[in-house]
Amino acid sequence: MAHQVVILGGGFGGLYAAQALKHADISLTMVDRRNFHLFQPLLYQVATGSLSPGEIAAPLRSVLSSQPNAKVLLDEAIGIDAAGKKLILADVGPIPYDTLIVATGSRTSYFGNDQWEEFAPGLKTIEDATRMRHKILFAFEEAEREPDMDMRNAWLTFVIVGGGPTGVELAGALGEIANDTMRNEFDNIKPENARILLLDGGERILSNYPESLSDAAVNSLIKLGVRTRNKVRVTGVDADGVTLKTVAGIERIEAKTILWGAGVRASEFGKVLGEAGVPLDHGGRVLVNPDLTAGAHPNIFVVGDLASLLQDGNPLPGVAPSAMQQGKYAAKVIMARLKGQPAPAPFRYFDKGSLAVIGRTAAVAYFEKFGKLMFSGPIAWLLWLFVHLMYIVEFEARVLVFIRWGFNYLTFQRGARLITGIAATMRKPEPPALKPQ
Amino acid sequence: MAHQVVILGGGFGGLYAAQALKHADISLTMVDRRNFHLFQPLLYQVATGSLSPGEIAAPLRSVLSSQPNAKVLLDEAIGIDAAGKKLILADVGPIPYDTLIVATGSRTSYFGNDQWEEFAPGLKTIEDATRMRHKILFAFEEAEREPDMDMRNAWLTFVIVGGGPTGVELAGALGEIANDTMRNEFDNIKPENARILLLDGGERILSNYPESLSDAAVNSLIKLGVRTRNKVRVTGVDADGVTLKTVAGIERIEAKTILWGAGVRASEFGKVLGEAGVPLDHGGRVLVNPDLTAGAHPNIFVVGDLASLLQDGNPLPGVAPSAMQQGKYAAKVIMARLKGQPAPAPFRYFDKGSLAVIGRTAAVAYFEKFGKLMFSGPIAWLLWLFVHLMYIVEFEARVLVFIRWGFNYLTFQRGARLITGIAATMRKPEPPALKPQ
Repeated sequence: MAHQVVILGGGFGGLYAAQALKHADISLTMVDRRNFHLFQPLLYQVATGSLSPGEIAAPLRSVLSSQPNAKVLLDEAIGIDAAGKKLILADVGPIPYDTLIVATGSRTSYFGNDQWEEFAPGLKTIEDATRMRHKILFAFEEAEREPDMDMRNAWLTFVIVGGGPTGVELAGALGEIANDTMRNEFDNIKPENARILLLDGGERILSNYPESLSDAAVNSLIKLGVRTRNKVRVTGVDADGVTLKTVAGIERIEAKTILWGAGVRASEFGKVLGEAGVPLDHGGRVLVNPDLTAGAHPNIFVVGDLASLLQDGNPLPGVAPSAMQQGKYAAKVIMARLKGQPAPAPFRYFDKGSLAVIGRTAAVAYFEKFGKLMFSGPIAWLLWLFVHLMYIVEFEARVLVFIRWGFNYLTFQRGARLITGIAATMRKPEPPALKPQ
Repeated sequence: MAHQVVILGGGFGGLYAAQALKHADISLTMVDRRNFHLFQPLLYQVATGSLSPGEIAAPLRSVLSSQPNAKVLLDEAIGIDAAGKKLILADVGPIPYDTLIVATGSRTSYFGNDQWEEFAPGLKTIEDATRMRHKILFAFEEAEREPDMDMRNAWLTFVIVGGGPTGVELAGALGEIANDTMRNEFDNIKPENARILLLDGGERILSNYPESLSDAAVNSLIKLGVRTRNKVRVTGVDADGVTLKTVAGIERIEAKTILWGAGVRASEFGKVLGEAGVPLDHGGRVLVNPDLTAGAHPNIFVVGDLASLLQDGNPLPGVAPSAMQQGKYAAKVIMARLKGQPAPAPFRYFDKGSLAVIGRTAAVAYFEKFGKLMFSGPIAWLLWLFVHLMYIVEFEARVLVFIRWGFNYLTFQRGARLITGIAATMRKPEPPALKPQ
């Protein structure tokens, strides 16, 4: 019987591991509770009405259908029997593995204030994105109908918490919606007068980028009407606004739309591994060995956002390229073992650079390993477009996204501006979306 | 002050009325509880994973943004003060009108058995379509995981109730999913062995079409593995199957997926008009005058599915072209009145013909007014494609849909196969979707 590899999670880490094992003499089972791979870096474009969910998701069965050694199982892992080499699934029960790759990723963190989720959706799942889209589009509609001036201003105030790439890209897209897409579509409000605030706790936004690029990002955001505020800490979130602690003291901002791009934490399955004796870091992520195996289990790999590993003293970033490289590395180790070859050198993340897009025509990018090249402006935007298109899994989706972006660029429109799932006359917020595994 | 026209409902009837009033010297308010116009004839393609919701919906604000005399209001109408010429909205309250066009359409009818909705979703809204898509895709996943043979067969049995165009198009798409799209994607089941049953109460499916086309449709469906059954009446629907009354007696079919394409009834607002003294037919639709006005109110028009009118002794069909023509006609009457011109001749529906598509390469079509031309097979399919593309409101969406169809045609794939909104491990059916207004 062939060597059984079970991969838990069909995100970047899991899918790239599976594809790297295409020609291995194994039997592979991909377990996920969702039936699709999601291109998470473009979720914010679904949240802001540029793309449809179907355009950034690829059915796992379809992606793996040309891989004869792979099958897909829709289920949720709820436990592990590491000694018996069995993964426990909620519906199917225990399934055996010879090697397990855990790639369950991360979920939104509210830093211990989970009650904020109701008012400030994060951005990790398709449901998060459609919920965010609903909130954003609905706010303009409410402002249009609102006779009271203060209330109207609260509907036209958008607070984005977190100045990392997600927050910056969200803020840029919101600025465009207000300034271009929605312009002249309303009677009682001027969408371009919306207040868009990007709040960051640190010294500058995009703190992982060179300082000159942070400055370039701030300038691009200002052109889109987004105001950036640094060194502010959110101490309260409710239906009507946020409370902040700033260097000057306590401050209150009345805002009906609060979007959360601030932090992530380990997915639930980290806890299961911890209970099985695998060491976790303080954030609940798995402290992996240099070959990405977990604790004393050489046949359990943890890759992607759930893995915690220092490289040259710094933690690996929680980005898609890192997860892809880790998935491929785990596959390489497994294949070497099967062939009786020596183990590959310890995992090293190769940072190809970072890219963030701000609105229609600007982006910041840097490529450390190629002599610290830096781009900003339209060339960075084109580069961003090209890089993201190349990594979208299905060719069809790639073509569709390209056309959408072309139209968005030329017409300032956003074709996917649907408020669904809730009647427009219901003022209650939608229930929090499903938590990812 | 300009003449105030209020249009209730942004479907085909309402939107075509609004656009026909583009150059009229009026002030127009489009009221809808959803923020988009929906291309309902393609809903079944969302339900079967060929298209994304965003591709068959156009934001009303965006569609009407180039029309200076029109504004959009997101709200739900809950009453009318016909004497005071005011429409009562749930949130905004009463708004005045000089002329009102009611175009609230129809919703799914379970013929008095509303408890069936939980098990057999209809197909009138985006939420209906994503719920149906969820049910269909999930059934194959459940069958794959199900060890018990009888249960597995129940998961692989699909019952479509209603042999009209919706039921036939759904059945054809399901046949393709099972035979082409899903083939070779599973390990434990053969999707091409799925049982797909199309149940119809009458003598033949597509009873509004010439008999030879019904026969052609049945043949096309057989090629896709769909079995058609006529003269059966559904007497019970539950989580595990349907109960039928046939000429031979009572029959039970174990099926986990039941899709409802059987009937429609008047939208809720019909009742409001009825209470205001407007005559209704037995199905709750408004018995309109020959100029599409309602009862004794020359300034209230009812167009589209909510209007009930006989033409040459036959009721007008509840199809998009009929609603479009009625919307345009109401606009013409209003403009004639404003200019003091004589009233146009009574409304007449011009039947350009009917088209239904069955899977990837077949369709049936007829054009009564051009000498009963008939098509079936690939030429009818191309015709269908062309006609539907031309009526999609936004140019961007048209291009996207064309590309999707091109890919679907060439690759047998369906890019929009997402199971969203519910964890794959939750076995409960999703809550019924929102009812349309």
